[in-house]
Amino acid sequence: MPNKKAVVLLSGGIDSTTLLYYLRSLNWEVRALSVFYGQRHSRELDSAFRICRQLGVEHDTCNLDALKPLLKGSSQTDNVAVPEGHYADPVMRVTVVPNRNMIMLAVAAATAISNGASHVAYAAHAGDHAVYPDCRPEFIRAMDGALKLCHYDGGVSLMNPFATITKAEIVRHGLQLKVPYELTYSCYTGKEKHCGRCGTCQERREAFDLNGAIDPVEYE
Amino acid sequence: MPNKKAVVLLSGGIDSTTLLYYLRSLNWEVRALSVFYGQRHSRELDSAFRICRQLGVEHDTCNLDALKPLLKGSSQTDNVAVPEGHYADPVMRVTVVPNRNMIMLAVAAATAISNGASHVAYAAHAGDHAVYPDCRPEFIRAMDGALKLCHYDGGVSLMNPFATITKAEIVRHGLQLKVPYELTYSCYTGKEKHCGRCGTCQERREAFDLNGAIDPVEYE
Repeated sequence: MPNKKAVVLLSGGIDSTTLLYYLRSLNWEVRALSVFYGQRHSRELDSAFRICRQLGVEHDTCNLDALKPLLKGSSQTDNVAVPEGHYADPVMRVTVVPNRNMIMLAVAAATAISNGASHVAYAAHAGDHAVYPDCRPEFIRAMDGALKLCHYDGGVSLMNPFATITKAEIVRHGLQLKVPYELTYSCYTGKEKHCGRCGTCQERREAFDLNGAIDPVEYE
Repeated sequence: MPNKKAVVLLSGGIDSTTLLYYLRSLNWEVRALSVFYGQRHSRELDSAFRICRQLGVEHDTCNLDALKPLLKGSSQTDNVAVPEGHYADPVMRVTVVPNRNMIMLAVAAATAISNGASHVAYAAHAGDHAVYPDCRPEFIRAMDGALKLCHYDGGVSLMNPFATITKAEIVRHGLQLKVPYELTYSCYTGKEKHCGRCGTCQERREAFDLNGAIDPVEYE
């Protein structure tokens, strides 16, 4: 049965953190899920933890490090250099982790079923489509269809409210919602300070610039 | 690009073991994947290991025990008694692990992408539909659609050749293929010898009986 409870996939970056705040502002009962799959940028999980603590949201962190040897060829899980360049540049394809988003959505749906939540919320946005096949609207529609059939009684529904907006628009919403962006982490390198050169750093800076705002995190 | 390489989800039970032998008999290049998700009947993973060793098939076992606390309410992952009765009895619903099959299919697809295989093979059969939502043909069709979109170049295709046949028919094929059923394990209790009373034990015995064959595993 549909209810107003959702498991939010939370990386600790800008998009999913804004999604968490956005759903809370609409009075959804939310619970966050973060996944370690061997990512180079696992520092994001500390951000996710601190964000949930500050917001007072229940948070599961699931350590699936055993996935790492199965996720080959990506700069984020394998011995491949992190590319520099714009987020939408084809060079970013090497950052794609094989079927990562389906794995995380599937675990989020299991968590939703276990906790009586009818929805999973996912922060893929319009800027992701250029490079990430598992952020495209057609993939998300197909996943919603599969999730609705994965369990009894209508299964789980997939919410993706940022599907058609850009990261700059996400940041605009987030600034209004007073999202603590100083706690978020985006850099693909996983270093303590954001590198400012990888795809996500460039996209992040651009999103703040387009809002005439200052990105509160430190850059190298 | 489609090729004749598949990752077979192998539990170590009758259905998936027969599927592995079946695909090999059709000259598919196969690789097996087994997943530990905290199941009570983890003894099946030893069976999967021995089956692959005997057949000379590459085998990944992925330890996702961190999933266990997220998979609530099931007799197979939570502190809930294993029911006795026929496999298709509604009492078996308590053995359903929330969204387990989507998680395993998603990991299998990641493994396929990482290894250049275009297919994932899955042994859900007609007898599973009564109780297991994530074995129903409509779920499998939806998953196939999502998997085809999860990555570049047509993603991954889902093969489910046993969708419309019974376990007895699977065993009939398997006996012709000389599947080493003495190595397989099916019991939901996870005990050393098969209990003979849980749903999978009853279904297993019935499948051999209907073929006028002797089940080679030991029962309590």
